Amino acid sequence: MNAQAPALTRNGLDLAQLDQTINLLSNQPSLAQFEFRASNQWINGGENRSQIRGFYGVGAEDQSRSADFVYTNGEPPVLLGHNEGANPVEYLLHALAGCVTTTTVLHATARGITIRKLSTRLSGTINLEGFLNLDPQATVGYESIRIEMAIEADCSDQELDELLAFAKDHSPVCNTVCRPVPVMLERV
Amino acid sequence: MNAQAPALTRNGLDLAQLDQTINLLSNQPSLAQFEFRASNQWINGGENRSQIRGFYGVGAEDQSRSADFVYTNGEPPVLLGHNEGANPVEYLLHALAGCVTTTTVLHATARGITIRKLSTRLSGTINLEGFLNLDPQATVGYESIRIEMAIEADCSDQELDELLAFAKDHSPVCNTVCRPVPVMLERV
Repeated sequence: MNAQAPALTRNGLDLAQLDQTINLLSNQPSLAQFEFRASNQWINGGENRSQIRGFYGVGAEDQSRSADFVYTNGEPPVLLGHNEGANPVEYLLHALAGCVTTTTVLHATARGITIRKLSTRLSGTINLEGFLNLDPQATVGYESIRIEMAIEADCSDQELDELLAFAKDHSPVCNTVCRPVPVMLERV
Repeated sequence: MNAQAPALTRNGLDLAQLDQTINLLSNQPSLAQFEFRASNQWINGGENRSQIRGFYGVGAEDQSRSADFVYTNGEPPVLLGHNEGANPVEYLLHALAGCVTTTTVLHATARGITIRKLSTRLSGTINLEGFLNLDPQATVGYESIRIEMAIEADCSDQELDELLAFAKDHSPVCNTVCRPVPVMLERV
């Protein structure tokens, strides 16, 4: 016999903690203000490396990480690199895939839906004439991005379609891409 | 005496290859059309993992990578995870840092500017009331992102400021964030 009941989870999320978090941020909206950060060093050519660790949220500096996350950007040979890592526009797809997935899982959990499987395939088109300044009319950056999601869950197809539309509307990375977000670049 | 002269490089980029690439894409603009891809599997809770390898560009499927790049998204405990990796909004900052850096380095190289050092610090603010659907008026995703760049190069401050403004306008990830880019999410 256990003295303590095991934590009740759905889709790998602790239901009591989810409930507490939502109640806390509902009652004290200022706690929902987060600041995320990264620092990056250029190595050579198309290679550079980021360190990610601290952030501010729920009213305090986070202290949960004992080491930096380190990720390396590179470029393939056709873009003058040596495949030192995925390139930045590919990392953006990774961020988008992860955010839409986590947003889907979180809101499914809140709705009482159990997900059995979830995977995505993303593709995005870019005309590099913009990047290389070969055509001033060319769009710079992704023209559009397509996400195909395969998902199996204990709900109807209609509930799944509604969940996916909701997740798209509430995914932070998806909305950073869909909406115009101001970026300030300053020399220090 | 070397039979072959070493490749002439600036900022780690091969100048002859840079010239060839720009001439090739100038003469055949259709070669500048790229498609980048990622596939992602949900693991559990806020953990999911991407594989990145193939892409289409310069008129062909790229064959240069012998293995997938694999990156793991996670969430910190205050966002119901176990720090399995940086979270998606942090990966987006990594992508943005890398893209602005590589765009700066590439266009500096084309202008004949040698960079000695380049590093960036990024911070972005997000109100999670949007993500959690606690306030329908709250912005979903980054409200704004700030990039501080420390750069040393063999040119004047005025040339540096012009280079940075140009890099911001020509960075694919920066423009994917700054401009509204359509994202299509479909269930398959």
